[in-house]
Amino acid sequence: MAPAFGGAHVVVPLPFNPKSLNGISERLIVSHHENNYGGAVKNLNRVEQELSRINRETPPFVVAALRDKELTFRNSKTLHEAYFGNLGGDGRRAGAIETALTQAYETSARWEEHFRATGMGLGGGSGWVVLGLELDTGALRTTASGNHTQILATSIPLLVMVMYEHAYQMDFGAAAAKYLDAFFVNIQWEEVNRRLERAQRASAAWGGAAG
Amino acid sequence: MAPAFGGAHVVVPLPFNPKSLNGISERLIVSHHENNYGGAVKNLNRVEQELSRINRETPPFVVAALRDKELTFRNSKTLHEAYFGNLGGDGRRAGAIETALTQAYETSARWEEHFRATGMGLGGGSGWVVLGLELDTGALRTTASGNHTQILATSIPLLVMVMYEHAYQMDFGAAAAKYLDAFFVNIQWEEVNRRLERAQRASAAWGGAAG
Amino acid sequence: MAPAFGGAHVVVPLPFNPKSLNGISERLIVSHHENNYGGAVKNLNRVEQELSRINRETPPFVVAALRDKELTFRNSKTLHEAYFGNLGGDGRRAGAIETALTQAYETSARWEEHFRATGMGLGGGSGWVVLGLELDTGALRTTASGNHTQILATSIPLLVMVMYEHAYQMDFGAAAAKYLDAFFVNIQWEEVNRRLERAQRASAAWGGAAG
Amino acid sequence: MAPAFGGAHVVVPLPFNPKSLNGISERLIVSHHENNYGGAVKNLNRVEQELSRINRETPPFVVAALRDKELTFRNSKTLHEAYFGNLGGDGRRAGAIETALTQAYETSARWEEHFRATGMGLGGGSGWVVLGLELDTGALRTTASGNHTQILATSIPLLVMVMYEHAYQMDFGAAAAKYLDAFFVNIQWEEVNRRLERAQRASAAWGGAAG
Repeated sequence: MAPAFGGAHVVVPLPFNPKSLNGISERLIVSHHENNYGGAVKNLNRVEQELSRINRETPPFVVAALRDKELTFRNSKTLHEAYFGNLGGDGRRAGAIETALTQAYETSARWEEHFRATGMGLGGGSGWVVLGLELDTGALRTTASGNHTQILATSIPLLVMVMYEHAYQMDFGAAAAKYLDAFFVNIQWEEVNRRLERAQRASAAWGGAAG
Repeated sequence: MAPAFGGAHVVVPLPFNPKSLNGISERLIVSHHENNYGGAVKNLNRVEQELSRINRETPPFVVAALRDKELTFRNSKTLHEAYFGNLGGDGRRAGAIETALTQAYETSARWEEHFRATGMGLGGGSGWVVLGLELDTGALRTTASGNHTQILATSIPLLVMVMYEHAYQMDFGAAAAKYLDAFFVNIQWEEVNRRLERAQRASAAWGGAAG
Repeated sequence: MAPAFGGAHVVVPLPFNPKSLNGISERLIVSHHENNYGGAVKNLNRVEQELSRINRETPPFVVAALRDKELTFRNSKTLHEAYFGNLGGDGRRAGAIETALTQAYETSARWEEHFRATGMGLGGGSGWVVLGLELDTGALRTTASGNHTQILATSIPLLVMVMYEHAYQMDFGAAAAKYLDAFFVNIQWEEVNRRLERAQRASAAWGGAAG
Repeated sequence: MAPAFGGAHVVVPLPFNPKSLNGISERLIVSHHENNYGGAVKNLNRVEQELSRINRETPPFVVAALRDKELTFRNSKTLHEAYFGNLGGDGRRAGAIETALTQAYETSARWEEHFRATGMGLGGGSGWVVLGLELDTGALRTTASGNHTQILATSIPLLVMVMYEHAYQMDFGAAAAKYLDAFFVNIQWEEVNRRLERAQRASAAWGGAAG
C-alpha cells in the first residue's frame, strides 16, 4: 500500500507509572490508555485501509464520511499522546512557559483562569482544551474543541487536557472541577517546556513571528 | 489588553491581480476576499475582545460558545490566506512537491484523484480540502473539513482549497466539478514548493520524522 | 429490501412558477431545486442502500459515518421541501401565525428581528433558520442550525429559511441581508398558517401543551 | 419576559426508583439525572435569558453562538426526559412496537442489530441513538447523533439511548457493549408503546402517511 494509506500506526505506551498519579486512579488511566486511545489507533488503521480503496466510482458522500473519521482518529491519537505525555509531573509551573504565559496573559494565574473556564465549558460533554503555539505568529493560544476534529490551524500542542468523560467519570463522577484540580497537580511542566522550545524552533523554521 | 486578546488582526491583500485568474471572475474573487475573508478578520477581532472579558462569573457555556467562534474565525483567516496565496499560478505541478506526492501516493495523479474526490464530497455544502505536512511524522496528508474548525493536528497547510459555496456559486452555480478544474489550472505550485521546504524545516525543528 | 431501507425517495416539484419570485432569479431557484435539493434526494437513496448492508462485521465507525450522512440527506430533503413550500407568496403576514407570534414575542416585529438576526449569524456560512412548533409544549421556537443535521427535538417546521450560500450567492453575492429581504417578501404565509393549524392538531394528539 | 424566552424550565423527577434498575447503579443514574440532565435544564434557562436580550446591536456571531447552545440544552432536556422515561421496565418487547419493527425491518431482531451497531459506533464518544417516528411519512427510523443538536426532522422519539459516557463509565468503564446489554434489559416497552400510539395519532393529525 502507498505510504499515505499505511494503516500501520502503533500504540505508544504510557510514559509514567499508572499507579503514580496524584488523585487519578490506575484503573481510570489504564482504561483511558488501552480502550479510548488504543481504540482510536486501531480505528485509524482501519479507516486508512478503507481510504486506500477510494476511486472514481466511490460515492462522494462516502469519501467525505471516511475523511471525517480519519480526521477524528488521527487527531485523537495525536492529542491523547500529548495528554499522557504532559501528565506524571508535580504540577509546579516554572521556566520558559511561566514567562511566556505571563507575557501573553499579564499573569499566568489569569491564563490558568482561562484554561479552567474553557474546560468547565466542556464539562458533562466531550472535547479537549489545548494550550498551543501558533506557528504562523509564534503566539500562545488557548483553544477548545467539542470533538477530536477541531484544532487551531498551524499549531503545536504544548499542554493538552482531555474533556471526554472517560477522563474523569470513573473517579470523579460528574465533578469536572475536581478533575481539573487533579489534572493541574499532575502536569509535567518540564515536558511542556521542552515542547515550547521545540515549537519555537519550528515556528522560526516555518517563518512565523517567533523567529 | 493582554497580547493573548489583541483583537488587532489585519486583512492581508490579495497576492495577485484579481483580473488575472483563469476562469475565476474578478467579481467572485474580490467578493470572496473582501466579504468572506475580510468578515472573518473583523469577527475574529470582536470575538477576541469578548474573550478578554471572561472571568469567574461568566457562564461556562458562554465561554465554550465564544471559544468555538474564536476557532472558527482564527482558522478561517489562516486558511483563506493560504488559499489566496496558492492561487495565481499556471497550474503546472513540478519540483519537490511532485516528488513527495509520488512517494506518498505512488503517482501524483493518484493524489489528485484523492484530492478531487474529497472536494466533491463537500460539493453543495461547506468546508475545506487541505494537503498538509504533518509535523509529528513529516508525512503528507490530504484532509477535509466541513467547517472552519476542523484541522489535522500538528499540520502545516501546503495546498488549500475552499469548498464553501462563496468560492464558486457566483461563477459556476452548483457545478463544483468545474470549480475544481478552475482551481487546479490556477494553482501557484511554486508557492506550494516554498511552503513544503519551510514545513520540512519546521518538522525537523519540532523533531518529527522529516528531520 | 425492508421498508426501513427503501432508497426510493423522489423529488417533489417546485410548488410555484420559478419565474414568479420577487427578486430571486429563476436560474438560482431552479439550480437550488435541481442540484442541491435533487442531489440530497439522490444521495439519501444511496445511503439507505449502503445502510441496508450493515451487519455484525461492519466496523462501528462505518455505521456511525453512514448514519451521519443519512441524517444529513434525510433532513436536507425535509427542510428543502418545507423551504420551497413556504415561498411563492406575497409576504403579508396575517392570521393565526401573526397572533401566535405576537403572543410568543410580544410583537411579531420582535420575532422578525430575532429571525433575521439568527439568519445573519449564519451569513457567509451554511445552515438553516426555522420557526417551529414544539410538540411537547405547543410553543413556537426560532432555531438555527449550521448544517442539515441540527433540529429542535419534537418540532414541526412552520417557516424555513435556507442559509446555505447556494440560496443567495448567485443573485446577491455575499449580501446575505439582501437575501433576507427577498426571502421575506416572497413568504407564502397562507402555507405557514396551514402548517400551524396542522401542527397544533399534531401537538394535541401527541399530548403536548397546545392540546 | 415574553413567553418565547421564559427561562422557566423545571427538572422532571426520575419516573422510577433509582435503586430498581437491573445492572445500572443508583449512584450512576442519580448523578446522570441530577448533574447532566439537571445541568442542562439550568443552562437552558440561562441561555434563554441571554437570548431575550438580543437586539440590532448584538454581533451576529454572538446570536449564532447562543442559538447553538439553546439547541444543545433544549434537546438535551427533551432527550434525557425521554431516556429516563423509557427505563424502569423489564425489557420484554411486545405489542404494537414489535409489530411495527417487524414490518419496517423484516424482523425486530434485525432492528435490534441496527440499533446496537449504531450505539457501538458512538462508544467512547458522545451522542444519542433514537428510534423515532417520522411524522411526515409515518415511518420508523433509527438515527444517531454525535451531540445534543442532531435530530431527525419532524420526528417524535419513541426509544432513546444516551451514548454520552456519563451514562455508563461509572458502572462499566469503557465497555459500551455491556451498557447496551444493561440498557436493553431495563427498557420500559409499555411506555414505548404508549409513545407509538400517540405519535401515530400526531402523524395522522399532521397529515403524514400514518394517517
